[in-house]
Amino acid sequence: MAKVPRMNTTPDAVTVREVGLRDGLQILVRTVPTAHKIAWLKGAHAAGLRHVEVGSFVPPKLMPQMADTAELVAAGLALPGAVVSVLVPNLKGAERALASGAHALLMPVSASHAHSLANLKRTPAEAVAELALIAAARERHAAETGQRVRLEVGLSTAFGCTIQGRVDEAEALRLVDAVFAAGADSVGLADTVGYADPEQVRRLFTAARAVHGARVDCGHFHDTRGLGLANVYAAWQTGVRMFDACLGGLGGCPHAPGASGNVATEDVAYLFASMGVPTGLSIPELLRLRGDLAAWLPGEPLRGSIAGAGLPRTLQDEAVAA
Amino acid sequence: MAKVPRMNTTPDAVTVREVGLRDGLQILVRTVPTAHKIAWLKGAHAAGLRHVEVGSFVPPKLMPQMADTAELVAAGLALPGAVVSVLVPNLKGAERALASGAHALLMPVSASHAHSLANLKRTPAEAVAELALIAAARERHAAETGQRVRLEVGLSTAFGCTIQGRVDEAEALRLVDAVFAAGADSVGLADTVGYADPEQVRRLFTAARAVHGARVDCGHFHDTRGLGLANVYAAWQTGVRMFDACLGGLGGCPHAPGASGNVATEDVAYLFASMGVPTGLSIPELLRLRGDLAAWLPGEPLRGSIAGAGLPRTLQDEAVAA
Repeated sequence: MAKVPRMNTTPDAVTVREVGLRDGLQILVRTVPTAHKIAWLKGAHAAGLRHVEVGSFVPPKLMPQMADTAELVAAGLALPGAVVSVLVPNLKGAERALASGAHALLMPVSASHAHSLANLKRTPAEAVAELALIAAARERHAAETGQRVRLEVGLSTAFGCTIQGRVDEAEALRLVDAVFAAGADSVGLADTVGYADPEQVRRLFTAARAVHGARVDCGHFHDTRGLGLANVYAAWQTGVRMFDACLGGLGGCPHAPGASGNVATEDVAYLFASMGVPTGLSIPELLRLRGDLAAWLPGEPLRGSIAGAGLPRTLQDEAVAA
Repeated sequence: MAKVPRMNTTPDAVTVREVGLRDGLQILVRTVPTAHKIAWLKGAHAAGLRHVEVGSFVPPKLMPQMADTAELVAAGLALPGAVVSVLVPNLKGAERALASGAHALLMPVSASHAHSLANLKRTPAEAVAELALIAAARERHAAETGQRVRLEVGLSTAFGCTIQGRVDEAEALRLVDAVFAAGADSVGLADTVGYADPEQVRRLFTAARAVHGARVDCGHFHDTRGLGLANVYAAWQTGVRMFDACLGGLGGCPHAPGASGNVATEDVAYLFASMGVPTGLSIPELLRLRGDLAAWLPGEPLRGSIAGAGLPRTLQDEAVAA
């Protein structure tokens, strides 16, 4: 009879980063009151989420939903053990972010030329040049304060683009090289529009990690076509141990027509819990917070599977994956 | 710069088997008219589906929805290239199936003792004994007619059970050995209740195929908790090249409380098309048929993702994966 291979050690922990306060809220027409955002932040912390992206330092005129980002950073910094990141589209945003005290800056760079022009009004090469300015500002800030803020790049549309269509994998990898050369500490590969398939995810992460190792550290997947969790699994198989997700599967990109929400935080938590991979997350707490979110966003469709189905019997005693 | 590993040959084709006429309809209270079922069968064939499970030879008093199974077999046999399978719970059903001219009999054997008693009113050991009687009947039929009908086993609740909870992997593998010894030609592993996770799928298929090779040939997954397509992908990675699916994500088990639908045929077709794996399926034709299904089953919720999101730009010119 066949033997079942067993892991004889606990697998590496996975970090799930809640990006709902940024990616989830940026496309909503409504502006969520700061008090609700802070309650979301605290609820996420109570459910075990330690990494949170709390907003974007973009011009408030362009995105009034994100005008309270500095306040959210301050609220995040008050939570024990929290790692607070913010999106910055340019040097000006990065300077505000450095002043806010955030732990990490996330600069989006689009692999798709067309998406880059639509989202950042710059070519990818111009975005890399802006990143170099941000990296220099980060070094100055470190010299002045002794605090070295982490500089991450999210490589948007790395797996395809609703405007341009196919994105060449070699071009995505060339940009990964370029952003490390410009001073990024780490790079995540983002399926901004829900085009990725698991084999493509496996190929691109494998190739990028072959050169840059664990510095290519984050997977960001949207679930537009049902492959979000398969893509998370495929990236995890290549060694990736950090994933962005939005509670309730909120999210999208204002400049990526047809894109829909991120993988749902509670479903990513369930995927890893089901595989016995520690995340530190409490699924019941996440579901409770999802209920609050539904109340704060009446009429907004929430997505995801585990909320409706509930935990299987096999996991009901293990809902908190240490 | 990193090189992207490329496949220099077309990957093996995958067979998707439409099981909606059996697994999709068996739990509905309504009885779908035979004419609609035959239209479904023809539409599935037109969309490229060659393998179809058309019904169950169960007592019509117990499951009136399946009373027309012999008629469906005849309709299937008339379609060029179709491979028609039927579910048989016992010897009596198998005899009716052999008389019907179906190409393949699928006997369910539960890995969960509790599910076996609920679903088949037999222990797993008794189910294996019944399978041996069916195998003998199949051999007699072959000797008499010269037609050797294929005998498949679907190992239900192989990844867990809503009644019993956890199912020991060693017990599932023991039953795989037992059903081959009793005369099965092939075995599929079925997540009847939507409990499987991709690592478990990888472990169990790898272990079973290490002993029995490609005769462990089919994955049957429900999408209760959003992991259905991740589980299909994980099984595919172990070499499995056949998957059961239901158009519109219909399906469930009358004796598996809380289970919901199968992976949607159109989403499985999309998964493989996105990876460049040939299935012979036309996604636009599947979506057209899904529209018919919605009209035939008013009020019945259909599931799945690709129907709502549509094909990505990158696949719109390749909707028929040769």
